[in-house]
Amino acid sequence: MSTGFRRSGRPTTPMLDREIIVRSALDLIDDVGAKGFSVNLLAQRLRVRPSSLYNHVKGKDDILAGVRELVAAPIDAGVFDNLPWDEALMSWARLYRAAFAAHPQTIPLLATQPLPGAHSTVRMYETVASGLERAGWPADTVVPLIVGIESFILGSALDLTAPPTMLDPGPDSPQAPRFTALVHARDEVSAAEGRPAADLAFEFSLTALVDGLRARLAEQTAASGDSRVR
Amino acid sequence: MSTGFRRSGRPTTPMLDREIIVRSALDLIDDVGAKGFSVNLLAQRLRVRPSSLYNHVKGKDDILAGVRELVAAPIDAGVFDNLPWDEALMSWARLYRAAFAAHPQTIPLLATQPLPGAHSTVRMYETVASGLERAGWPADTVVPLIVGIESFILGSALDLTAPPTMLDPGPDSPQAPRFTALVHARDEVSAAEGRPAADLAFEFSLTALVDGLRARLAEQTAASGDSRVR
Repeated sequence: MSTGFRRSGRPTTPMLDREIIVRSALDLIDDVGAKGFSVNLLAQRLRVRPSSLYNHVKGKDDILAGVRELVAAPIDAGVFDNLPWDEALMSWARLYRAAFAAHPQTIPLLATQPLPGAHSTVRMYETVASGLERAGWPADTVVPLIVGIESFILGSALDLTAPPTMLDPGPDSPQAPRFTALVHARDEVSAAEGRPAADLAFEFSLTALVDGLRARLAEQTAASGDSRVR
Repeated sequence: MSTGFRRSGRPTTPMLDREIIVRSALDLIDDVGAKGFSVNLLAQRLRVRPSSLYNHVKGKDDILAGVRELVAAPIDAGVFDNLPWDEALMSWARLYRAAFAAHPQTIPLLATQPLPGAHSTVRMYETVASGLERAGWPADTVVPLIVGIESFILGSALDLTAPPTMLDPGPDSPQAPRFTALVHARDEVSAAEGRPAADLAFEFSLTALVDGLRARLAEQTAASGDSRVR
């Protein structure tokens, strides 16, 4: 119901553009969760009609592609061009976990939302995949390796948002003397080293995973000396 | 508004008990997601007043503890009493992933919800932790090991619910020739072996992780021959 005139100073409605839509979508997902997100609810928040959004984005999938790019923006995959693959993988994994831990509600959504439209994310995958391939990983192992470590990273990002006392069995629990003692042993190391318990678990398992991958690549490289491995 | 009389046959409202409440809570989380769950919404679904629920459960945390026990019921940790730790860990990980993949909406909730009240889950952790300790894992590594592999399992359970074409970059994507080729190489193996792509990633990384853990334990055991490791 515009009067056709606008007072000077702040406009009553902000200009709409793709960036504003995508940032609001991320805020909305942070607040209501992945399952609660809808284009109608987003339009309501932005005080516009859903149809106004479609002048700037193609639809829900396009909005979510933008959200993926926004969440993943701090993940630098350039390390794959500069470092040995195993060091690059660890550095990338740490940045990736931190980026998603800042928006844990996006994890179940983006872990299952198809990639098209998230152009910067496609470029990230190209860098990571090319780096692993150059390092000698057989063609059919590169994507399973990436997907597997991503699963570990996303699960670890969720764990980073858990309360530190999460594994305390509680007063009315059945007897769990060894588990309780081992949780305390972990907490003592965490306190002594000044590192959150979630970091101990992440670094412990990341190191083991990359050690296992390194051994596997060495084996496959040795085997391919005789006969070509697939 | 009861008349004080009840017709024979089915009662108009089902009897309420803890199991009915917990099963409805899981259904509700499956439908609306973790962030959308509330005791009021659950009461509404069950067509009772929220206060009626409190005759059977202590509150929201108690309901969620029950949901955890229900989701985790198919996870058999008994393998830790019968198999070598590394085989037991792999078997437990496979059952754990399948159990949570059946209810992916519970993953962000249960990954961050404190344990108290989930008695059968506490017993599961006691079995797993005791098995790892008996195998020679130092006290301060057992819980980080468990938490790390759980992160991998929960992330992999989410991946299992992703569409198989998730990593297809789409027609209007930037050039990603290596990534695209490597996704196709993965898909060819998946088709040839008749195994879902998610299973390839999970088994590939689970094997690497357990290989890395096995090497680490062997190292620590060798080191503790001279001096006691912490």
